Amino acid sequence: MKKAVPRNALYAQSGGVSAVINASACGVIETARRHRRQIVGVLTENLIDLSRESAATIRALRYTPAGAFGSARFKLKGLEQNRTEYERLIEVFRAHDIGYFFYNGGNDSMDTALKISQIGQALNYPITCVGVPKTVDNDLPLTDCCPGFGSVAKYIAVSTLEGGLDVASMAKTSTKVFILEVMGRHAGWIAAAGGLAGQGRDQAPHIILFPEIPFEQASFLARVKQCVGDYGYCVIVVSEGAKFADGKFLAEAGTRDAFGHTQLGGVAPVVANLVREHLGYKYHWAVADYLQRAARHIASKVDVEQAYAVGRAAVEYALAGRNAVMPAIIRTASKPYRWKIAPVPLEKVANVEKTVPRHYITADGFGITAAARRYLEPLIAGEDWPPFERGLPKYLRFKGKAVRRRLSTPFTL
Amino acid sequence: MKKAVPRNALYAQSGGVSAVINASACGVIETARRHRRQIVGVLTENLIDLSRESAATIRALRYTPAGAFGSARFKLKGLEQNRTEYERLIEVFRAHDIGYFFYNGGNDSMDTALKISQIGQALNYPITCVGVPKTVDNDLPLTDCCPGFGSVAKYIAVSTLEGGLDVASMAKTSTKVFILEVMGRHAGWIAAAGGLAGQGRDQAPHIILFPEIPFEQASFLARVKQCVGDYGYCVIVVSEGAKFADGKFLAEAGTRDAFGHTQLGGVAPVVANLVREHLGYKYHWAVADYLQRAARHIASKVDVEQAYAVGRAAVEYALAGRNAVMPAIIRTASKPYRWKIAPVPLEKVANVEKTVPRHYITADGFGITAAARRYLEPLIAGEDWPPFERGLPKYLRFKGKAVRRRLSTPFTL
Repeated sequence: MKKAVPRNALYAQSGGVSAVINASACGVIETARRHRRQIVGVLTENLIDLSRESAATIRALRYTPAGAFGSARFKLKGLEQNRTEYERLIEVFRAHDIGYFFYNGGNDSMDTALKISQIGQALNYPITCVGVPKTVDNDLPLTDCCPGFGSVAKYIAVSTLEGGLDVASMAKTSTKVFILEVMGRHAGWIAAAGGLAGQGRDQAPHIILFPEIPFEQASFLARVKQCVGDYGYCVIVVSEGAKFADGKFLAEAGTRDAFGHTQLGGVAPVVANLVREHLGYKYHWAVADYLQRAARHIASKVDVEQAYAVGRAAVEYALAGRNAVMPAIIRTASKPYRWKIAPVPLEKVANVEKTVPRHYITADGFGITAAARRYLEPLIAGEDWPPFERGLPKYLRFKGKAVRRRLSTPFTL
Repeated sequence: MKKAVPRNALYAQSGGVSAVINASACGVIETARRHRRQIVGVLTENLIDLSRESAATIRALRYTPAGAFGSARFKLKGLEQNRTEYERLIEVFRAHDIGYFFYNGGNDSMDTALKISQIGQALNYPITCVGVPKTVDNDLPLTDCCPGFGSVAKYIAVSTLEGGLDVASMAKTSTKVFILEVMGRHAGWIAAAGGLAGQGRDQAPHIILFPEIPFEQASFLARVKQCVGDYGYCVIVVSEGAKFADGKFLAEAGTRDAFGHTQLGGVAPVVANLVREHLGYKYHWAVADYLQRAARHIASKVDVEQAYAVGRAAVEYALAGRNAVMPAIIRTASKPYRWKIAPVPLEKVANVEKTVPRHYITADGFGITAAARRYLEPLIAGEDWPPFERGLPKYLRFKGKAVRRRLSTPFTL
């Protein structure tokens, strides 16, 4: 880069992957390359030397879903609680002359990036840390939206539309209730996106179950009954994070992920069971799970562009000497949608969760308002088909050339 | 039509819908229109007068998923067992001067079409019946494939590819096993299509569970363990119809559909539970359910073309005076794929189920062979994107203009 002594940059991906996280990688790498410096990826000493990859390979990242470099679920504790891990990080940075650290992830990752930027001072190692936002949950503050969300939103809206047409055509003699389970542990943004599929009370989805609205069985069942009575069928989009008033998840799986969060999945069959027991309607249910966040084939063009833009901006910020920041997406107009990128301090982003505001949810708690539609619709705009070959998207299967290890001691996560 | 006394034609859709069943409707209607006769749809007396719809509306059927005219799950019993239903049908046909009956469905529907053609003789009412093949299960005999299947196959292959990339990128520190449940009650064609996503033992899907291969827990778990050990992760595509050696389904839901078939769904969590209990790996599972058969956004171009072609051929056969036939797709070459349409007698199609032959499945029972790939690959070829508007496919929401009832007695299904 433009520094007097050029140093290496490290790019890493973290947390659940998305359809466009590699578009951010592409933005980081292509921008960094214009400044003729090498970038390496993947945390701890499994580093990949990206300077040895062709421009075509890097370009293919733009339309390849999931984390091409491997994504880690590994949250660093505070410096006081786990000094060893931080010291090891600095050891790796020092061994490979890493001067720039780009961390592409969600809430937890912005926290990690912030902590690493603080190491620089605490352990007297100069490092510029820039967070690159990515989370399908869309729950980072200070940014209009999070890269990865727009594509999940589009997938869920399209799936709700298609599944809704299916049930509508069969309902007279067959399935009357269709339940689609979507992601979103604490925020109902993805569930809200399902609402884009319909334009009135009679169109699917008829019910959205948000984590933000406590689940009430009686009003839920009454609404299902009303829909089947009035429209012949009922389509329900339920967030994996839907919970009762006491905070208990509808789907308590009893297991926890590496961060100690309850691991969810399987709320759709729980809801289906309620419908069967209390109303007796024939039902079907679907759980989109990973399909929704990996669905690059139906990615939002706006999302892909924003994912690339935050990657590019991250490198530009680092070059300008900005530390502990994150490029945020700033909406300047809704119709037509206009946006720009601006830096926000990581300490204002880390560990803050942005949930769906009450005025985006209809009074009955089961739908989205016009305000929500104005917010969401631009984010799913445009298509960005990947290239296809023999009927399938031609995604990059990235191998990468490993950087020779320079440390003699191994480190296990 | 070209008969001395022009008569009306009735087109009806039956059974589970698909992404391209309306493309067949489009083929039927556009072809019939060239012969300047009116077509009406939907069984019993809820008829729609399609002569009053614009050419643009009919054209939009080509890219609209699900059954635009409503699809019925209603199987006619034998003439001896239920004479009342047949007499009612003839009564409706007579009241509306129906001379042609096009029935768009799968195994059960071909059986119904055949029986109705037999009524003509038994009840002395002249009616020409032509079956129009449609089933995502791909289990009709005498045709290379069934319209609706190619698009589900493409959706499942794309989803397996995308979900597989997702897990591969996370497996080191998170989910190691991903299970995708797909449709196919008795035939594993859809599950087999998942196999198109990978090209070698190390690529997803690593395991396919077919209804045709009895499930053996020990060899299944051993293979999962080997995959996680050797490749770091394991992707499993499981058919809803997967069963034990004694014929019991892995997912016995205990409920039955209108035809008396066991209603399945939920085999993915059963498989996930096995993995958790015996191997302890972190897992995720998805159930595509209706999303797979309604996914017009990722339809196969070949499938759309074939769906239209069988609709067109059905009208041509009827005009030529052929009764009790079905237009079948005949493969004339695989590389490049070439096909033509030819009539087959309904009595040879009805109630015969074509399952996946053993030589399409690898010796270990967990994958597809090169022969299966040669068969399947052409069926998912090409993309046929629907038009999009504001981020979503612009599907037809068909209302239809009802035909005035002419019978004084109502009939309840």
